[in-house]
Amino acid sequence: MKRIQPPSTDLIPTPVVMVTTQGRETPPNIITLAWVGILNSDPPLIGINIKPERHSYRLLRETWEFCVNIPHRDMIRAVDVCGVVSGKDTDKFALTGLEAQKASKITPPIIRQCPINLECRVMNSLDLGSHTLFVGRILAVHHDETILDEKGKITLEHFTPIAYCPGVRDYRALGEKIGWYGFTKGKMS
Amino acid sequence: MKRIQPPSTDLIPTPVVMVTTQGRETPPNIITLAWVGILNSDPPLIGINIKPERHSYRLLRETWEFCVNIPHRDMIRAVDVCGVVSGKDTDKFALTGLEAQKASKITPPIIRQCPINLECRVMNSLDLGSHTLFVGRILAVHHDETILDEKGKITLEHFTPIAYCPGVRDYRALGEKIGWYGFTKGKMS
Repeated sequence: MKRIQPPSTDLIPTPVVMVTTQGRETPPNIITLAWVGILNSDPPLIGINIKPERHSYRLLRETWEFCVNIPHRDMIRAVDVCGVVSGKDTDKFALTGLEAQKASKITPPIIRQCPINLECRVMNSLDLGSHTLFVGRILAVHHDETILDEKGKITLEHFTPIAYCPGVRDYRALGEKIGWYGFTKGKMS
Repeated sequence: MKRIQPPSTDLIPTPVVMVTTQGRETPPNIITLAWVGILNSDPPLIGINIKPERHSYRLLRETWEFCVNIPHRDMIRAVDVCGVVSGKDTDKFALTGLEAQKASKITPPIIRQCPINLECRVMNSLDLGSHTLFVGRILAVHHDETILDEKGKITLEHFTPIAYCPGVRDYRALGEKIGWYGFTKGKMS
């Protein structure tokens, strides 16, 4: 049986990413976001959605560049802290011990401890109400050597990404593999 | 050490959802998508990104309504099949045994077996290249009684959502809880 509820944002799971931004004359900041998603494959575009009252929103609109950093499960405390405290009065790099490393194509730094980093430049933005959608073109990607196999492809053998569950408000570690794209070959049995 | 790679869509994890659509005079269809994300909290908006060559794209542009259905891990074969075969020549409800149930506010059906269903109406669309972003306003939400606790809140005790890992191309079950929003109270230790 189904129970009908009022509208809500119950998409489960969502990604959990740490987005770095930097103003023209201000130090870099980190914000943890779950309202993010890939928008387009060719060219590769990612959407991040931020409230105008957040410090990262102001920084983002100075340089129109950001980096999406994907954390490992052992970074969960830093992930939560960076979603809860404000960069207006806190240096989140100092607070968390995360290290800013120079990016290849953009001004904001990448986070060294995150195994994957997507350098992005904003192509478009759309005010939607509580949040603004920033459409970022992915310009370069960094993979930590530790998550690559001998062919240079990502493997989750030593990398456990984090998911967020809106509604439940839980962070979850990704669990076991239950299939792969196309494994059914279009047949049910 | 980091390895710099060409641009790619390596956001890990992403949601895995089954989107239902229906044309004005054609039967409903199902498409599995990972390029989806919450865009806005108030009003609740969700973005789904579809290639113009997909059958669901054509149906969506007839009624501008869709439902986001969130599958349980035991539906993994149906999830994969509905991402691989085309609704142009296959009735995916018949193929998978999934049941179409009447929605409350939109024409396309909800999928009965999916524990969460988000009924949406398109507010805006944006052609981005390979994909089109459809911004959907969430009009109503269905929760299966089996995933609600005694207070009517979602619990993951009997519900294991699925995540997708682009790049790796794995489907993963969500694993154990490693924290909850705000659990650090803004402190690292």
